[in-house]
Amino acid sequence: MMMSRLAEPGDADACHLVHEYSALALLERLRTHRGRSSKLADWSERLRTANLRAICDGASSVGARYVCPGDPEWPVRLDDLALVDESSADRRGGEPFGLWVRGSGHLADICDRSVAIVGARAATAYGEHVAGDLAAECGERGYTVVSGGAYGIDAAAHRGALAVGRPSVAALAGGIDKPYPSGNIRLIERLTTTGVIVAEAAPGCTPTRSRFLVRNRLIAALSLGVVVVEAALRSGSLNTARWARDLNRSVLGVPGPVTSSASAGVHELLRQPETVLVTDAGEVVEQLSPVGTAPAAVKSGEISPRDLLDARSQRVLDAVPVYNAASARSIAATAGLRLADVEQRLDQLGERGLATTDGRGWRLTLTD
Amino acid sequence: MMMSRLAEPGDADACHLVHEYSALALLERLRTHRGRSSKLADWSERLRTANLRAICDGASSVGARYVCPGDPEWPVRLDDLALVDESSADRRGGEPFGLWVRGSGHLADICDRSVAIVGARAATAYGEHVAGDLAAECGERGYTVVSGGAYGIDAAAHRGALAVGRPSVAALAGGIDKPYPSGNIRLIERLTTTGVIVAEAAPGCTPTRSRFLVRNRLIAALSLGVVVVEAALRSGSLNTARWARDLNRSVLGVPGPVTSSASAGVHELLRQPETVLVTDAGEVVEQLSPVGTAPAAVKSGEISPRDLLDARSQRVLDAVPVYNAASARSIAATAGLRLADVEQRLDQLGERGLATTDGRGWRLTLTD
Repeated sequence: MMMSRLAEPGDADACHLVHEYSALALLERLRTHRGRSSKLADWSERLRTANLRAICDGASSVGARYVCPGDPEWPVRLDDLALVDESSADRRGGEPFGLWVRGSGHLADICDRSVAIVGARAATAYGEHVAGDLAAECGERGYTVVSGGAYGIDAAAHRGALAVGRPSVAALAGGIDKPYPSGNIRLIERLTTTGVIVAEAAPGCTPTRSRFLVRNRLIAALSLGVVVVEAALRSGSLNTARWARDLNRSVLGVPGPVTSSASAGVHELLRQPETVLVTDAGEVVEQLSPVGTAPAAVKSGEISPRDLLDARSQRVLDAVPVYNAASARSIAATAGLRLADVEQRLDQLGERGLATTDGRGWRLTLTD
Repeated sequence: MMMSRLAEPGDADACHLVHEYSALALLERLRTHRGRSSKLADWSERLRTANLRAICDGASSVGARYVCPGDPEWPVRLDDLALVDESSADRRGGEPFGLWVRGSGHLADICDRSVAIVGARAATAYGEHVAGDLAAECGERGYTVVSGGAYGIDAAAHRGALAVGRPSVAALAGGIDKPYPSGNIRLIERLTTTGVIVAEAAPGCTPTRSRFLVRNRLIAALSLGVVVVEAALRSGSLNTARWARDLNRSVLGVPGPVTSSASAGVHELLRQPETVLVTDAGEVVEQLSPVGTAPAAVKSGEISPRDLLDARSQRVLDAVPVYNAASARSIAATAGLRLADVEQRLDQLGERGLATTDGRGWRLTLTD
């Protein structure tokens, strides 16, 4: 718990040291540390001013618990974070020491089948509509929606899940006692009635820009896949998508108009070969399920009676006029087929109700 | 020329026979043919009623010429059609015997660098806007726009090319003397002033549904790639896209709202791995050019001064308040870095104009 206060969330060096020394031994070492140039110096200085009681008070004031790797509530999927190579400056992170958790949901259980739906804060009405529908439909198919509690797409996704009575998970960038942004506090509090909210930083911590970036790795790691609904070119959601890719999660994107800057980042993402374009929950679930177990219906439009005809009969049908009846000879000339064959096929089209004859000529049977 | 009247456009058997016997020998054989069950019987019957003079009159009335494989104006790219395996009922077609061509453009020359832009007749204002812009910008980059002369996306693409003074090519499903649809006759006529219109069926032929499908293979074959702008799930444009795939042309799609049925077919197409999502002409040209010769600018948004800072200075900057100045000690606590280092970095941020101090505390320098 103390380490969640001292080291920044996602500090890989801190992860390694805790694994090497155990958190207690590391804290003991920090208490006597006198160096100047290393991270140990940062933590050591922070330790002298930190107050474990204040942290615990902050947590208990909101009824938060601390869940660590190995606890029954710890989602084993988070362990994948230990395997990711942190090569990029904006993707710091290893496995967290633990997570502050709040809410009546069981974190591991509700994340067993979960999908992250994330996107722009400055979302459009289109994006919020799609995110809400997608979340509700994924919820109805048994998936928990994970997001970041932000304005725009995140909030629409959480609301969509709540609307169908499904638990939802929000991963916060600041302390568990400081839901952010303030305008979403009521929504985030509502999540705790059936789902949970989680935070890696200690209670009392403010959400800073770098904490948002490391928080994103939790959203990706907690889920089977990440759906980006709207994202501008530099959106943090694209960072979440990169985490998903590095964690071998599905990376999915919902397109929008190419004239909308709120979709430009998604389109850039969809130009990467590993990203799959999705348009509805069926297509999302297909990607998150083991191959072949939940195929989305291929959208092919309606089958028309014409489709059931062979190619020659289709050509005859195509040559039959809509209004003014034409002779079989004229139809044969238009179709480029010989008369005897056309006459026979016209009779068949008549039997199927596709063409009508007045005894002299043929025209299409109008439906509707 | 006579064969273009007898056999349906894209009849692969006719292609094979013409190659085997020559068109003249085949016509001679048809004149004496007496069988009943084969295509030869169709053609033989048609030959007895067909009128070569009427065909030639139809062509000369609109100043059309007949261009055959091997002619200087024949685009060699069309020869690729001879290599495609015709396994699907809706994709009949081999190489045409020839094309009826009309207009002052030189077909082979203007198709040397060409892109097909096709899509729904029932297009939305969004789709027509995007198609027109794309065509104009591809035109400005030296590409000829090939399309089908139909309402909606096709017409918008032709207009976009004309608007920047570039030739455009329309491939018609019916005879060259019968531009279709009637509402686009003026537009199609305008194409002949700098570009060309082409038709495979003989003058006088009406455009039937099956002729639209075989016409689509010409649009794909004439171009380096096909861009589908809007297409419903059963749109003929998807047939053009399948031809492009089978001809090893680029298959490109412009996304739209997932709530728009006019984009549903494009999205289905974009879910195929061989289709590339494009949002502007730069991305289209990149795909049509030899790999690496015309890379589209990666869209990454603007670089901010913050991006140029190292990770620790970014953390300090993130901890500096926007309005109410905070002490270096408070900023160090928020950032989780030790005080001496933070003081030094705050001075640097001040020198770069990113932070401002009143001597006691620091706040962000507001721009704009």
